[in-house]
Amino acid sequence: MQQLIDRIRAEGKVLPGDIIKVDGFLNHRVDTKLLSALADEFAKYFPIDRLTMVLTAEASGIALATICAQKYGVPLLFAKKAKSDNIEGGLYQSDVFSYTYKKKVTYIISQEWLHADDHVLIIDDFMAKGNAMQGLVDLVNAAGATLEGIGIAVEKGFQQGGDRFRNLGVPYKALAVIDRVEGSELFFRED
Amino acid sequence: MQQLIDRIRAEGKVLPGDIIKVDGFLNHRVDTKLLSALADEFAKYFPIDRLTMVLTAEASGIALATICAQKYGVPLLFAKKAKSDNIEGGLYQSDVFSYTYKKKVTYIISQEWLHADDHVLIIDDFMAKGNAMQGLVDLVNAAGATLEGIGIAVEKGFQQGGDRFRNLGVPYKALAVIDRVEGSELFFRED
Repeated sequence: MQQLIDRIRAEGKVLPGDIIKVDGFLNHRVDTKLLSALADEFAKYFPIDRLTMVLTAEASGIALATICAQKYGVPLLFAKKAKSDNIEGGLYQSDVFSYTYKKKVTYIISQEWLHADDHVLIIDDFMAKGNAMQGLVDLVNAAGATLEGIGIAVEKGFQQGGDRFRNLGVPYKALAVIDRVEGSELFFRED
Repeated sequence: MQQLIDRIRAEGKVLPGDIIKVDGFLNHRVDTKLLSALADEFAKYFPIDRLTMVLTAEASGIALATICAQKYGVPLLFAKKAKSDNIEGGLYQSDVFSYTYKKKVTYIISQEWLHADDHVLIIDDFMAKGNAMQGLVDLVNAAGATLEGIGIAVEKGFQQGGDRFRNLGVPYKALAVIDRVEGSELFFRED
């Protein structure tokens, strides 16, 4: 998606360790107009009419997923990082190694809010190694719900996450795929 | 706000420890139509035209604050819980004791995204003892920015947070204030 790629080129930064910093508009300070455009773009790739839910993981996916849920007219559900005791009763749970936090993170969802008859679109801001995404897919499967697609704003195409989920048999779309980083320069995959 | 109070009465639950569970529409599964109505209601109480930013803390405030930022046409900024190394450079930082997580949480904001000329509305889903909110106010003050108001969806009026910020000299509005809990019954403050 050219608008997103242009924005990453203009404002993104590369930090040591091939970290792509887009925290001026995507996942710290957030440009909601851009998120609206991303949500419209995702709608071209997924069966929006069949969706009953948009799912993401806290924290950085929530803003984008909120705008998507609003546009598509379905509830947003965000998986929580375990520790809070404010969720009672049955939980779906998946353990994920977080490279951002360098430790195991457990994602939980109340069984009250995800059911076998749900049709779920997973939305996240970033795809790198795909561990957090696998955790979300596991939660959908644990509930017996139908995964209708995976939508990502920015994929680090030089890590393995994207390919892992392209082979999953559901629509997968990343709106900007960074194929490689050379110094501070970003090279994007053509659509 | 009657719509929110009605929703809490219909779907909220009281857990041991006077925990008010509204995770079916506010902070786990999220009803974005309700959030839009809350954002419209907040707009009656705050100087929306002067705002340059909506600020919240990850994670549960992000959905509501995103919808508010979208409605008011300003960026959203969410304070992150420290540990991620994806934020570089200067940080504003505040330490907060989280009763939800029963430990100290450090909120951080990149100095790149909050400045002395910003006019900030803080939005959060819940007000209890007010520790997280104090952390956000401290971040605004550290940047020398102007705090234009504090908007809360649900206040636990029987804890001290609300009164603490009502006395701060900026507009404060909680759209539903729970004055007391008796068994599983909630009593709301009249507007």
